[in-house]
Amino acid sequence: METEPLVYLNGAFLPASRAGLKVYDAGIVLGATVTEFTRTFRGVPFRLEEHLARLYRGLKYLRIDPGLTPSDMAAATLRLVEANGALLPPGSELGIIHFVTPGEFRAYVGSAGGAGPEGATVCIHTMPLPLYLWSGLFRIGAHVVTPSIRHVPPQCIDPKMKYRSRLHYYLADLEAREWDPRAVALLLDLDGNLTETGGANFLLAREGTVYSPGPRNILPGISRQVVRELCGELGIPFVERDLQPFDAINSDEAFLSTTPYCLAPVTRVNGLPVGDGKPGPLFHRLLAAWSERVGVDLLRQVLEARPPSG
Amino acid sequence: METEPLVYLNGAFLPASRAGLKVYDAGIVLGATVTEFTRTFRGVPFRLEEHLARLYRGLKYLRIDPGLTPSDMAAATLRLVEANGALLPPGSELGIIHFVTPGEFRAYVGSAGGAGPEGATVCIHTMPLPLYLWSGLFRIGAHVVTPSIRHVPPQCIDPKMKYRSRLHYYLADLEAREWDPRAVALLLDLDGNLTETGGANFLLAREGTVYSPGPRNILPGISRQVVRELCGELGIPFVERDLQPFDAINSDEAFLSTTPYCLAPVTRVNGLPVGDGKPGPLFHRLLAAWSERVGVDLLRQVLEARPPSG
Amino acid sequence: METEPLVYLNGAFLPASRAGLKVYDAGIVLGATVTEFTRTFRGVPFRLEEHLARLYRGLKYLRIDPGLTPSDMAAATLRLVEANGALLPPGSELGIIHFVTPGEFRAYVGSAGGAGPEGATVCIHTMPLPLYLWSGLFRIGAHVVTPSIRHVPPQCIDPKMKYRSRLHYYLADLEAREWDPRAVALLLDLDGNLTETGGANFLLAREGTVYSPGPRNILPGISRQVVRELCGELGIPFVERDLQPFDAINSDEAFLSTTPYCLAPVTRVNGLPVGDGKPGPLFHRLLAAWSERVGVDLLRQVLEARPPSG
Amino acid sequence: METEPLVYLNGAFLPASRAGLKVYDAGIVLGATVTEFTRTFRGVPFRLEEHLARLYRGLKYLRIDPGLTPSDMAAATLRLVEANGALLPPGSELGIIHFVTPGEFRAYVGSAGGAGPEGATVCIHTMPLPLYLWSGLFRIGAHVVTPSIRHVPPQCIDPKMKYRSRLHYYLADLEAREWDPRAVALLLDLDGNLTETGGANFLLAREGTVYSPGPRNILPGISRQVVRELCGELGIPFVERDLQPFDAINSDEAFLSTTPYCLAPVTRVNGLPVGDGKPGPLFHRLLAAWSERVGVDLLRQVLEARPPSG
Amino acid sequence: METEPLVYLNGAFLPASRAGLKVYDAGIVLGATVTEFTRTFRGVPFRLEEHLARLYRGLKYLRIDPGLTPSDMAAATLRLVEANGALLPPGSELGIIHFVTPGEFRAYVGSAGGAGPEGATVCIHTMPLPLYLWSGLFRIGAHVVTPSIRHVPPQCIDPKMKYRSRLHYYLADLEAREWDPRAVALLLDLDGNLTETGGANFLLAREGTVYSPGPRNILPGISRQVVRELCGELGIPFVERDLQPFDAINSDEAFLSTTPYCLAPVTRVNGLPVGDGKPGPLFHRLLAAWSERVGVDLLRQVLEARPPSG
Amino acid sequence: METEPLVYLNGAFLPASRAGLKVYDAGIVLGATVTEFTRTFRGVPFRLEEHLARLYRGLKYLRIDPGLTPSDMAAATLRLVEANGALLPPGSELGIIHFVTPGEFRAYVGSAGGAGPEGATVCIHTMPLPLYLWSGLFRIGAHVVTPSIRHVPPQCIDPKMKYRSRLHYYLADLEAREWDPRAVALLLDLDGNLTETGGANFLLAREGTVYSPGPRNILPGISRQVVRELCGELGIPFVERDLQPFDAINSDEAFLSTTPYCLAPVTRVNGLPVGDGKPGPLFHRLLAAWSERVGVDLLRQVLEARPPSG
Repeated sequence: METEPLVYLNGAFLPASRAGLKVYDAGIVLGATVTEFTRTFRGVPFRLEEHLARLYRGLKYLRIDPGLTPSDMAAATLRLVEANGALLPPGSELGIIHFVTPGEFRAYVGSAGGAGPEGATVCIHTMPLPLYLWSGLFRIGAHVVTPSIRHVPPQCIDPKMKYRSRLHYYLADLEAREWDPRAVALLLDLDGNLTETGGANFLLAREGTVYSPGPRNILPGISRQVVRELCGELGIPFVERDLQPFDAINSDEAFLSTTPYCLAPVTRVNGLPVGDGKPGPLFHRLLAAWSERVGVDLLRQVLEARPPSG
Repeated sequence: METEPLVYLNGAFLPASRAGLKVYDAGIVLGATVTEFTRTFRGVPFRLEEHLARLYRGLKYLRIDPGLTPSDMAAATLRLVEANGALLPPGSELGIIHFVTPGEFRAYVGSAGGAGPEGATVCIHTMPLPLYLWSGLFRIGAHVVTPSIRHVPPQCIDPKMKYRSRLHYYLADLEAREWDPRAVALLLDLDGNLTETGGANFLLAREGTVYSPGPRNILPGISRQVVRELCGELGIPFVERDLQPFDAINSDEAFLSTTPYCLAPVTRVNGLPVGDGKPGPLFHRLLAAWSERVGVDLLRQVLEARPPSG
Repeated sequence: METEPLVYLNGAFLPASRAGLKVYDAGIVLGATVTEFTRTFRGVPFRLEEHLARLYRGLKYLRIDPGLTPSDMAAATLRLVEANGALLPPGSELGIIHFVTPGEFRAYVGSAGGAGPEGATVCIHTMPLPLYLWSGLFRIGAHVVTPSIRHVPPQCIDPKMKYRSRLHYYLADLEAREWDPRAVALLLDLDGNLTETGGANFLLAREGTVYSPGPRNILPGISRQVVRELCGELGIPFVERDLQPFDAINSDEAFLSTTPYCLAPVTRVNGLPVGDGKPGPLFHRLLAAWSERVGVDLLRQVLEARPPSG
Repeated sequence: METEPLVYLNGAFLPASRAGLKVYDAGIVLGATVTEFTRTFRGVPFRLEEHLARLYRGLKYLRIDPGLTPSDMAAATLRLVEANGALLPPGSELGIIHFVTPGEFRAYVGSAGGAGPEGATVCIHTMPLPLYLWSGLFRIGAHVVTPSIRHVPPQCIDPKMKYRSRLHYYLADLEAREWDPRAVALLLDLDGNLTETGGANFLLAREGTVYSPGPRNILPGISRQVVRELCGELGIPFVERDLQPFDAINSDEAFLSTTPYCLAPVTRVNGLPVGDGKPGPLFHRLLAAWSERVGVDLLRQVLEARPPSG
Repeated sequence: METEPLVYLNGAFLPASRAGLKVYDAGIVLGATVTEFTRTFRGVPFRLEEHLARLYRGLKYLRIDPGLTPSDMAAATLRLVEANGALLPPGSELGIIHFVTPGEFRAYVGSAGGAGPEGATVCIHTMPLPLYLWSGLFRIGAHVVTPSIRHVPPQCIDPKMKYRSRLHYYLADLEAREWDPRAVALLLDLDGNLTETGGANFLLAREGTVYSPGPRNILPGISRQVVRELCGELGIPFVERDLQPFDAINSDEAFLSTTPYCLAPVTRVNGLPVGDGKPGPLFHRLLAAWSERVGVDLLRQVLEARPPSG
Repeated sequence: METEPLVYLNGAFLPASRAGLKVYDAGIVLGATVTEFTRTFRGVPFRLEEHLARLYRGLKYLRIDPGLTPSDMAAATLRLVEANGALLPPGSELGIIHFVTPGEFRAYVGSAGGAGPEGATVCIHTMPLPLYLWSGLFRIGAHVVTPSIRHVPPQCIDPKMKYRSRLHYYLADLEAREWDPRAVALLLDLDGNLTETGGANFLLAREGTVYSPGPRNILPGISRQVVRELCGELGIPFVERDLQPFDAINSDEAFLSTTPYCLAPVTRVNGLPVGDGKPGPLFHRLLAAWSERVGVDLLRQVLEARPPSG
């Protein structure tokens, strides 16, 4: 009984099993949800402030007042991490999910009359990071495919916040998996430029320089920012510019950066090998530098992780 | 106790209070939900088959197997309508919501590894139609505003299915309400053509002809289809073509068509009156024809409706 | 020796083995080639005049003077058909290829100085139609896939002529075959509308109506025109409008129309079955009507065809 | 007899007159050709490795296996240069053309059935550089015109490889020559940005800085790269950014950079003079620096060149 | 003295020489002007009501209250026509110009503070139609050229009103005249579709059908409407659809329709002859039908017109 | 009498009341006008040369020969400034307006025949700067709103010159004022990027860096250039890149830069406060640095200004 993790929901800390959403919540009905995913390293949330700052930028854009300050939210987060982390075996790491919606959509069917939602839904919950899932990612690398579905442009929904109206990512991934069951979609924008996957930023390296799409069409990923800082420390130029599938196919290495697993090598683009088709030296240098920074051997942590028993 | 309405969820008929969604459902996490809203006239669902056919087109597009046939789903719907309708005062009408998601998103954080969701979530629930909310709509008319936010184009998410990744509609409505608290957003596509509102199709009339945006950028509304049929019966040409705000502003009448309230006059576009700024004769003709078809005086039903006591 | 087919090249009728192109021909160097593919039914070229009229529209657009009139070209064609048809076993059909280029690109490297090509290259040649290749197409149907590569828009190269700068079709087909080795690419335009495959027009049928993309983005196919006429005769509405992948996936039947095999059923779109995934009744009605018109049982002709011995 | 130059074709070194392509080669039928043009300075190929590296990037994109490595291809190239250079008068320079296609298009008419081409066509041939053609270019300058035809966008065909589906360049040049017989087309992209001509990169200079369109829409020219390096040596900033016709018209100087003649001044844009309408000082500085680097006085080489006698 | 024509300006009828605009009028400073051009046939204004209705649609869009009703404006117009027509030699026709601006731009430099213009400027003036200028147009035909400048899209300024922010038309005509001094620009929209010239609608005919661009990107010309009606009377299909330069180049005939000269043949498109390069039979049929309708032999009126003496 | 300011018009210095434009001037009829607005500081024109250089770039683009050199025009300007400045009370500042049009549009109705305008109209006039209007701007800040109207793209009219076909700005401001009567429109380009207002450049600041849209879609403002220089002096990075409304809403400060009032804080974007919704520290630093540079306390000058008496 006591082992059930807590969930923060609208001011209360509840056992997870009692924390359901109402069916008319605008987050469910409209996908009008801003969210964050933060992880721990050795049990300590990584860059929580930055994650919350990005969350609050999205809230401002959506004109949602969550009813608590970023530092209140940080405090509630730390309380959850402490409580829920204590339930896990040693060596575990937590994923921490924040999401906020405008609340219950009072007049679901009365939208032409104009009444909006009232009272934000604020939720924080955690999950053990499934580290064991990523060993293939680190050893073999990710496969990406550019699908026919295009990324939603910022004049419709701005990707600079993490939101949950993600059907286009979902549709794109369906196409990618048809092509290659291991693949995830690397979405192009309406002009055919590379953007991101549904869960990660995309980067590539060529002749010693790391290239990233510019900030227009992508989530300003915090892991991407870490990579940028690590590049700075390692003396590797990090350049933002419009990139196309041709660039990805002809890169020396390519990467996905994202909170859960930090950095993964991309070893196939549209079925073609990136470089020699294996995780490359720059990947290993960057992952090692990251490991050093957080005091965790990230490669080993994943390779040695085991699925939960039972 | 017995007064609680039933909800159909994944094969079971449950009391509404026991029918919550799990927090990792792809419908919540990704907005990967296909949905329908059907209403009753005198307690009988209207064009349920067409609604379900459209639902199943969306399911095919999302490669979701709901695990039951359209006629099974119709039967479950009718059972709900019977049970839940019996709980309401006479003269009430039901709104019926179907939604289907790919189910729980097992590997929320493992998207780069490729694991997809498993086991669709299928839900049907009902609500009493808030008829009393729409008297202003029928007497004064709706106000629409073209916001700066643009509609998501079909190469990202196709609007020919009703889906719940609706953040762009939500953002657009926020802008519209800033401009005029009564207004809803009439979204433009990326080329500046009129499309639809977040909850209704838009139509306009000029010199005796009804014009609608073409099928590319809009939900193929079942109410819109009814209007088209009624126009046919009344000898009113119904023409699909690209329309711009200039056309809306200079129309004689304009309309929203949607399942909950069938048809409403639009009396302001971007703050400018449509025609003389009042519900016009064509609106009344069409609503009367609709009323005759369904055996309900729709105008009277709304004007005489009262909010639920308590 | 006598069995070698003839080729018409720049006024002369040559044995095929002596009819090579020069390496600096603008058709090779620039892909600046207008072409047609015509076939015979029972040895008689089908709609040769229409094919040549389309060829000459392209020549005018490219400002190429081929040096002979359409009727001269028709006469040369008939002479080739007679000569080359006589070399084939009974029951064979010919494919007839016309292509015209601006001729040798005199100043290949002097383009900044402006000198253009001089003296068009005009070529007509024939090949036995590989009827035996298409039995799978007729029995199982074609698979189409919408690739990430988009169709070249008409403000770059107008697809209303048949031209040989087809690298985008080639790239699109590479993607399609990665997805499904049987598949061909059904290209989308820059707005995400369906256009055509590299070798055929695409049509779909829903609720008894045949739909085609409009003329903006596609070759005005002569086989497509035949289908349109047959629809007229059979009382089947034929409607041109913007179509998206959603429409193709949710059609009852879909087709490819093209000169070599006339009409083929499309039974999969992006891996999803069209209708029940088998060639449908409308396909068979249209093919039968076509067969009647040309006096050849097209289905049987293909199913009974055998590869050339040796 | 012995004076005929050699051509490398699919592993063999043949006399040019025996090296024709087959009419069904995909390079002819589809324009599916990747190519390079390299030149010599004093008989030595310039940056051959870079040209071949670019060729191989295109081959990877087209999934063509040429069957020989870049260094094999370099060796074959040098053998040709030696053999063919020996046939020319002293002071001549060679242009070296590499092109590779997917090979003969076996099932030309069976594309819906999916069969692809087999066995790449690999060809290397040379030509004497027509240096004498370029004296006007160096003395008077090139004229460029922005035509109504737009450049093919990278989501259709990526211009980062040199390919032979160049019909849009050809159409654009037709328009340019209508306007001014000396002019070549400077194509705009779909957003109205400057890109390149059919044979050269475009650069402009204003207030001491050289500006170039970014890498998205243009061939990453090797001569452009040389200009960039020379700018670096001369302390001239070289900036990539979106440029429009307004910028070209109001530049102080403008240039075409391309392998055959290295660098030429552009003295008219859309009929308006660039600067004072004459080759400017920056052109002469850059050409002098280039001359020094390759040990050839490029201006003098061109001005003193004479057409081949006979 | 008495021979000076009158001008209507803000309620007063003034001699033309006294009717200047103030330099801060928003019509001058911003081009924020809605305008109409109407002509007489035998001294009687043609379709004045339709012109004024279009003017008032533009005024509504610009939220300008002109301070007088359409019938007041018609009355003022007729008074001007009577007075000014009496000053002209027999056989003359008047052009009547209406234009309305938001009035003097009070806070020219204070736009960030928000103050708008106050008090509309309403002006009506006339001019003798320069019929003599159009004989070449009727005998030789107009030349049109598609320039690189694109038409302003309706999401920026809607072309369904006649407005005076026409710099793009002006720039386009500059390009057209560079190409051919007789040519006017036929602007393409951003997708490369044909739209209109700066002064006329464009139409083409092929195989007995007249085609026009759809209403999205063009002025809904009143002369175009007359052509449509005449086509109806003559049994000629009139079809609206997207058209490209390829269509214009390959049409049998093409036309400009516009108030001043009603209808003119287009005999060259981008330097290529339309049909045989001469005014065609459909032009003559349509002009004859128009002549009959208005009781004026339009061809003869123009061919016999002489420039004003002196 | 003597108090009337002078106007320069086509070579003459006239009293303002005698300097009207003709109704057929292309500047009025077509909005084909290039213009500049320069101001004085302590009676001395600021960066007049740069303003005139920009004017002449526009004239070249429009192929207008103004008939006098930039230095002639500067001299005429200084003479006007001296004469007209002397008429004003001490402490006044002048706004100086230059505008040039192609002159009278001789063949207004003969555009299909091709005749263009002849003889440019060149005008210089001045006005007292209404400094008193801007105190609210400096104390409260400007409000901006992103309207549904989009900026005209450079392939239609290039915004790098200041022109008077400004109807889209006018329409955009109408929308902005509907939303908030104090607001001005901050136009988005067709891709949803921020551009500029009708009268000013837009800049934003975040975490100590100033960001501006790139040069593609905006006037290269001279005040913006001053801000850039001041940033350089103050050690503040100034970065050009694509920006979206999300960035503006989440900036720390935002600014309008423009000649009349130099720099103003933007305190609301789409109704949301920028930072704390008040003019911020960077605004005050930049304005102080500007004040120092020109020897005028700009804040005080505005706050102490009074409207002209009478």
